[in-house]
Amino acid sequence: MSAQRAQFDTPLVFKSGAVLPRYELVYETYGKLNADKSNAILICHALSGHHHVAGHYANAPKDTGWWDNMVGPGKPINTDKFFVIGLNNLGGCHGSTGPSSIDPETGRQYGASFPVITVEDWVESQARLADRLGIRQFAAVVGGSLGGMQALQWSLAFPERVRHVLAIASAPRLTAQNIAFNDVARNAILTDPDFHGGDFYHHSVVPTRGLRLARMLGHITYLSDDAMADKFGRELRAEQFNYGYEVEFQIESYLRYQGDKFASYFDANTYLLMTKALDYFDPSHDFGGDMNQAFARAKADFLVVSFSTDWRFSPQRSREIVRPLLHNHRNVSYAEIDSSHGHDSFLMEQPQYMDVMRAYLDNVAREVAA
Amino acid sequence: MSAQRAQFDTPLVFKSGAVLPRYELVYETYGKLNADKSNAILICHALSGHHHVAGHYANAPKDTGWWDNMVGPGKPINTDKFFVIGLNNLGGCHGSTGPSSIDPETGRQYGASFPVITVEDWVESQARLADRLGIRQFAAVVGGSLGGMQALQWSLAFPERVRHVLAIASAPRLTAQNIAFNDVARNAILTDPDFHGGDFYHHSVVPTRGLRLARMLGHITYLSDDAMADKFGRELRAEQFNYGYEVEFQIESYLRYQGDKFASYFDANTYLLMTKALDYFDPSHDFGGDMNQAFARAKADFLVVSFSTDWRFSPQRSREIVRPLLHNHRNVSYAEIDSSHGHDSFLMEQPQYMDVMRAYLDNVAREVAA
Repeated sequence: MSAQRAQFDTPLVFKSGAVLPRYELVYETYGKLNADKSNAILICHALSGHHHVAGHYANAPKDTGWWDNMVGPGKPINTDKFFVIGLNNLGGCHGSTGPSSIDPETGRQYGASFPVITVEDWVESQARLADRLGIRQFAAVVGGSLGGMQALQWSLAFPERVRHVLAIASAPRLTAQNIAFNDVARNAILTDPDFHGGDFYHHSVVPTRGLRLARMLGHITYLSDDAMADKFGRELRAEQFNYGYEVEFQIESYLRYQGDKFASYFDANTYLLMTKALDYFDPSHDFGGDMNQAFARAKADFLVVSFSTDWRFSPQRSREIVRPLLHNHRNVSYAEIDSSHGHDSFLMEQPQYMDVMRAYLDNVAREVAA
Repeated sequence: MSAQRAQFDTPLVFKSGAVLPRYELVYETYGKLNADKSNAILICHALSGHHHVAGHYANAPKDTGWWDNMVGPGKPINTDKFFVIGLNNLGGCHGSTGPSSIDPETGRQYGASFPVITVEDWVESQARLADRLGIRQFAAVVGGSLGGMQALQWSLAFPERVRHVLAIASAPRLTAQNIAFNDVARNAILTDPDFHGGDFYHHSVVPTRGLRLARMLGHITYLSDDAMADKFGRELRAEQFNYGYEVEFQIESYLRYQGDKFASYFDANTYLLMTKALDYFDPSHDFGGDMNQAFARAKADFLVVSFSTDWRFSPQRSREIVRPLLHNHRNVSYAEIDSSHGHDSFLMEQPQYMDVMRAYLDNVAREVAA
């Protein structure tokens, strides 16, 4: 297995009106495309995800794909039956064209000049990748969190090109609280003196302070209160209080470690773009906020999955997806999984969750074979 | 009405072992101390509070006290009946000795040399103020949030000196999630290049970026998801999306405004101290985590109040106060107020809340008069 690249020379007009004259997408595939090209599944990634969804490269046996428990031979997204595609979204920092890429027009990194991108723009770029691979219609488009929003958007932008949409731990649009958390994270980056308005590449610095804070905050919202209590509680790092600002509790140690690790490799501009894409997504925006109207054009069947302790995108938010689909007489399966792991549950191997995914996708595989 | 000052020249030994040789507390009083000095109520403030609890100064008619809806003539904490004291906590930035005060030993601001302070230290300093005012026993000690922790600590440190404890929107100790939010806020300040290890005073700068982020984040946890949705929803600042990093949604405008305002007057070191005091407070710490043992020495009667949509200190956390009190056969009244305003509810005028407070304190007033 290895990553592949697709170059696109047809300009992409963003929802904002900005134009990207050319770009590359990096992607990976797993399994075999069948003769009538009807067994393809697209995996859409969330905020910090990428194209390396499953397995590992020959030269990096420890670099396992981020959804390896879900995708592979005999797994719920069964690569013995499906041809699975993972890509790095446009604007990303794992190989697809993004703010840290060289702009061929200037010979310098895009930085602040890379346009703000939306879920709609991503889906457009993903459809072009599907065209390139000769896939007219996906058996399924699957995603968790922000990935779930892309899966939903597929059903709206290209109703004829997707038979099943799997939206996991997702929401039809952000709440004010969701946007607020994103805005704090963004402000941490934007006000970092090393950010230089997004053009830090030209100053040989990286806004690690801001990116670290953004990630620390993110992690709080990915975990449930209970999961944090179970895992860390009030456990101290040392035997006694040190009455200072060094790490005192284990939870602080965990958060700072996660923040430092993330800030060492993730691109700050990509982080900003991802959070803006989350904020802007709202299929009902052009329908006066009416989600029923927004989903009237969907034709796919849907599986919507939520997790009991997810407070970033709670089960209530998933039901906001289910309701307009039912209103429009779509086939919808909805599962609320009992899990203590909060929003992160969608990445974890839990029997009930795996069973739901497997059962649904086995039916999809039978459709493909029929 | 005007603020008063009390100087203390007896060294205060902090829980950390640090010693403050001398200090001042600024305080205000409302109502009249009765002949046997039995009608005094102490108000303990939360993170950003201070001594100016009620009313306004002659020369500043708009600077109303932060709990003016609760404290005053005929109000639930009725200053026609009670002698009410508000103070600025030690380590604060509203007049009491704190990091921004001049250290008489060096002639420079304390900055990083001001010791990390705990709820226990505050209560010790408050008891000294009570001594100074000739108050042997408070009719009640009252506080919301971090103020509630101080009220609880009064019942443990000085069981004979407080007859009633009113702990509102509070918790017996922070959870890992609570600590995590504090740590992100602290790291925003600590990593601000203008913080200079706490000695920014000597560099003629203020770590406004960090303080602003800390406050923005704080505000998210003060409001409920529902309150934010009702107040802001996905309402845009302008008519259209601008696809950039300026304010797009009203919630962003609100948060940034709150952050900017706070950063313009609050001391960054005080903010750090307040969050550390929150983290450290845990009456059960010396009892192997057993809250029942911790509260065995309490002798006061208690009113515990929580608010339905408070997710910073949820009703569940208030019940963690109630349970050990009941275990120890204390008189406890518990009220869970139906409110949409989240943690901030404790500062708001809501009939059910006001009625509960008034009913409880009218009984306390009858005791005093008897």
